[in-house]
Amino acid sequence: MKVAVVRETRPGEARVAMVPELVGELTALGCLVLVEPGAGDRAEFTDEAYVDAGAVLDEGAVRQADLVLAVQPPDPAVVREMRSGAALISFLPVRQEREVVVALRDAGVTSFAMELVPRISRAQPMDALSSQAFVAGYRAAIVASGLLRRFLPMSITAAGTVPPAEVVVLGAGVAGLQAIATMQRLGAVVRAYDVRASAAEEIASLGAVPIDLGLAPLDGAAGYAREMTAARSARQQELLAPYVANADVLITTAAVPGLRAPVLVSRAMVEAMRPGSVVVDIAAEAGGNVEGVRPGEIVRIGQAQVWGGADVTSQLPAPASQLYARNVLSLLTSMTLPGDSAVFAPDFADEIVAGCAVTRDGAIVHPPTRDLIGG
Amino acid sequence: MKVAVVRETRPGEARVAMVPELVGELTALGCLVLVEPGAGDRAEFTDEAYVDAGAVLDEGAVRQADLVLAVQPPDPAVVREMRSGAALISFLPVRQEREVVVALRDAGVTSFAMELVPRISRAQPMDALSSQAFVAGYRAAIVASGLLRRFLPMSITAAGTVPPAEVVVLGAGVAGLQAIATMQRLGAVVRAYDVRASAAEEIASLGAVPIDLGLAPLDGAAGYAREMTAARSARQQELLAPYVANADVLITTAAVPGLRAPVLVSRAMVEAMRPGSVVVDIAAEAGGNVEGVRPGEIVRIGQAQVWGGADVTSQLPAPASQLYARNVLSLLTSMTLPGDSAVFAPDFADEIVAGCAVTRDGAIVHPPTRDLIGG
Repeated sequence: MKVAVVRETRPGEARVAMVPELVGELTALGCLVLVEPGAGDRAEFTDEAYVDAGAVLDEGAVRQADLVLAVQPPDPAVVREMRSGAALISFLPVRQEREVVVALRDAGVTSFAMELVPRISRAQPMDALSSQAFVAGYRAAIVASGLLRRFLPMSITAAGTVPPAEVVVLGAGVAGLQAIATMQRLGAVVRAYDVRASAAEEIASLGAVPIDLGLAPLDGAAGYAREMTAARSARQQELLAPYVANADVLITTAAVPGLRAPVLVSRAMVEAMRPGSVVVDIAAEAGGNVEGVRPGEIVRIGQAQVWGGADVTSQLPAPASQLYARNVLSLLTSMTLPGDSAVFAPDFADEIVAGCAVTRDGAIVHPPTRDLIGG
Repeated sequence: MKVAVVRETRPGEARVAMVPELVGELTALGCLVLVEPGAGDRAEFTDEAYVDAGAVLDEGAVRQADLVLAVQPPDPAVVREMRSGAALISFLPVRQEREVVVALRDAGVTSFAMELVPRISRAQPMDALSSQAFVAGYRAAIVASGLLRRFLPMSITAAGTVPPAEVVVLGAGVAGLQAIATMQRLGAVVRAYDVRASAAEEIASLGAVPIDLGLAPLDGAAGYAREMTAARSARQQELLAPYVANADVLITTAAVPGLRAPVLVSRAMVEAMRPGSVVVDIAAEAGGNVEGVRPGEIVRIGQAQVWGGADVTSQLPAPASQLYARNVLSLLTSMTLPGDSAVFAPDFADEIVAGCAVTRDGAIVHPPTRDLIGG
């Protein structure tokens, strides 16, 4: 069984789907690991490190592979190079990547989307959305610390005491909780809000203060939030406004995979922030939680600097790749019969396999995607 | 007694010598506080905030003042605007600023250099070198965190564990200790070295690991380190090399006011660091602790990014100004007879006043500076 590791080509993408330290686990399963030269360069993994770990460098890896591993969905041109009957594991946001899905279907490639892995406890080690959100949340806190022209911790010196910075985090999923934890480590006073019922307890468990707006919770499927009505959104903005106005740092992380991020903070709310305030919105690529944010840029709104995340996980490409590769390895292992010559044999009766499969045998097998695209 | 607060003009300087929150203490002493318009702009203190606190905006503040407060030494042209018999409190590095010292002498201005305030316990609230080093040390850690493309803390996720980053701090004075404390907060594994005997205990008290090279301590005057011989320097570099090579982050803070910073780390030592390593040298303006560093730039040496500090305290201008203003207020108060109309009456018999006076009554009164410049 030949496994190919591709060199990512999308601008801004610095991760790689497999890291040298895990190559040994693939070869132990009975896989031959083929790596496109330079695949790990942007994540500080050298070709030499892959070879030392037992991989083979091969510019033609994709053409030979039984299974292709990638972070981003491959270009349709790359898909067409794959053997009919081969498989792909990568992120594959089906609504946004219809052209790739069609190419996979037409090339007879069996594809598995990491973001469709069911959120059940057996699949936790395969949960790449969570592992990457963890990276993004940490990074959001570090970026905010760097932009802020004040101390985060309370600072006591012979020349007097400087109070700690006030941080507000909106969205307390994996990313938000990691942002909260990092800001707490740095000594800031952190308040956080999330529409889900369980969030307050998790926020408090990190030592931060849950913001209670007195609104009904909005729990949705698989631990994510439900979409909210326009009336709820307006009321929520109104109630959040004083918290935002009082914050030195606002970090927003509210995103639901595949959907537009909710606008939690209006331009007027940012305009009410103090001089020198910092806003970090890691949902910017999904439309943003903050009105006026632009992904990959710092814009000035009122007296605040507003940082819009773009490819945030690629800012920490080595650990993001390590965690993603571990997710991929875990999924791959569950689909492989190990042996002297391993066989890729996904069991479509398995809830995880069935849940994340997008195409198979020339057909789209993920029902919502089939409804969207056909066939 | 009229006290002027100048608008700093040196490129890169964002601090201001007096902050709105302390203006009330000056007026309570019986001072009239005149502020040059825009003086606090770059530190996020508005003209309005000064006025609200009881100050008067006045473009001609310096010409009328009995006492001028500044961060950087004023330009000789500004000195020549001052009244004969007026006084100045500012940073005034006498070796580098001979032209300013001559102008102060010739204008009949009495001047006090904040860096010459004796390091005695009564003068701790006036110790601006320490307060500013505190700011720079915190900033060094935050800058390093932002440049590093890895996590600092150990990160435990369902997809596996990422080990904490390894940080080495060289120089454990006020700045180094603050860098250590901040990196500890962030969960890094921190090792630190300082040539002074007392440093190991202070490093350990923050939870970091003191590096013991088995070399004799080099304690100098006033809590600073002594200069080292070339042989000691070479041996020290040799012994530090493996610690540097193993670090993800190296922060250097070894500086003695007014002297060239010691080169603690050679180019070869940086070249031995791993891909993605980060070096932050806040002594860069004083020549740098790291060979090849350039103030205000990030240079690539081997596989490391090497950040050279320039105006580091101006990156956190509000808190740096708050602490500096508190230092200045403390010194000023010790030299002022309060009353309905306060009088600036420094007592030159006082060890602190005598220690930091540079010029008085048309003469240079700081002995080393008089020896250097004459008269």
